[in-house]
Amino acid sequence: MNDSTPLNALRTGVILVAGGSGQRMGSPIPKQFLMLREGATILETTLRRFTDTLPDAEIVVVLPAAETARWQAICRERPAIPFHRLCTGGATRFESVRNGLAALGPCDLIAVHDGVRPLVSSALIRTCIATAAAHGSAIPAVRPADSFRTVDASGNRIIDRDTLRAIQTPQIFRADLLRAAYRQPGRPSFTDDASVVEAAGTPVTLCEGEKYNIKITTPEDLALARLLVEAGLVQTQN
Amino acid sequence: MNDSTPLNALRTGVILVAGGSGQRMGSPIPKQFLMLREGATILETTLRRFTDTLPDAEIVVVLPAAETARWQAICRERPAIPFHRLCTGGATRFESVRNGLAALGPCDLIAVHDGVRPLVSSALIRTCIATAAAHGSAIPAVRPADSFRTVDASGNRIIDRDTLRAIQTPQIFRADLLRAAYRQPGRPSFTDDASVVEAAGTPVTLCEGEKYNIKITTPEDLALARLLVEAGLVQTQN
Repeated sequence: MNDSTPLNALRTGVILVAGGSGQRMGSPIPKQFLMLREGATILETTLRRFTDTLPDAEIVVVLPAAETARWQAICRERPAIPFHRLCTGGATRFESVRNGLAALGPCDLIAVHDGVRPLVSSALIRTCIATAAAHGSAIPAVRPADSFRTVDASGNRIIDRDTLRAIQTPQIFRADLLRAAYRQPGRPSFTDDASVVEAAGTPVTLCEGEKYNIKITTPEDLALARLLVEAGLVQTQN
Repeated sequence: MNDSTPLNALRTGVILVAGGSGQRMGSPIPKQFLMLREGATILETTLRRFTDTLPDAEIVVVLPAAETARWQAICRERPAIPFHRLCTGGATRFESVRNGLAALGPCDLIAVHDGVRPLVSSALIRTCIATAAAHGSAIPAVRPADSFRTVDASGNRIIDRDTLRAIQTPQIFRADLLRAAYRQPGRPSFTDDASVVEAAGTPVTLCEGEKYNIKITTPEDLALARLLVEAGLVQTQN
């Protein structure tokens, strides 16, 4: 890959990380398998965003070992679920992504996306692809509307809001960069892939995220996501 | 006031800051006058949260000078809008709050709240009152769900999410503390009242805020707020 490679000639791999057990959701069914709209789970909706936008991409879904059978049963019942590869997650998000990387074939760019962010738009996926192709990485970020404070044992103090960005996924990287970063040992501070690549010594490039590209982790988030879909404030089908 | 004063004996003043001109809303009508639900504007709904929760509080609504006539006309049409005092805002939020302070009579605690945060619960208002009575200040704050980065001219880097809190209103203070802090000159870094009090040399106390206590500044925020009300995810009436 070099700067003159057209975007549509880039081979893209996608890792959908759905390793969570859904404890915060208070449901016996992991959150990624809950229904976002008639018939379609959250995970299927997320998956479809990527297959609709990047029909030639290779897609790996990472699930907890205890949940792969359940997802395979869902897939048998819904032949419309797009084709993808399945791999099992690890004890941490870091391990889950590393397993996903091992399952992906050769590609130029790799997108890592939360399986429970189904409201991502095709436009945002395309923007991230173009940014990563040009700069090596693309991390969607939004300006927060609220004031923020930082807290520690000694108390709290204001942060300059203009310097803050809330970080989302998909986080897209040149494949060699991401694979090299995931050769280092995991750390508790690795909350996303940008933090892994940064710790490996490569600064990351931000691009504009989307307000409603929310991560569904609580029953309230799921209710909000359903409302946003029903009200047409986000699209989940092209 | 001292530590043995019962909460219901505290005189509370409330300043509802609705100084915005609604430019971000893309509407000729300022956002505080848009309808949140059948018949009731955003500002009326906010006002009612406070009069329902604190029936004895003295309430001042701060509006841009150009908008007071419009609000007075709305009030004449809706006799159900709770009694309050009106004062005109300044060029900045700092000046608007200072004008509100000048309009308030003697009190023990002063709450400053965004006029466009109508989804605040009675429970949160009561928690802030109790915290401010005990500690001198109460700043509602919520843990963010996303990763965050800080940006500057040299690039961006990750922030430890565990140390971050998103700040809301009502921000409630001992009256003497807030009045003293507002005697200093305004600064561009004063994005809320906590920042003003902190700059005057007094650390502030955080308490737990509410996820859906959102500030309505864009048409999308308004659509979301209406959905939350319609779906019963927040209460706007006791």
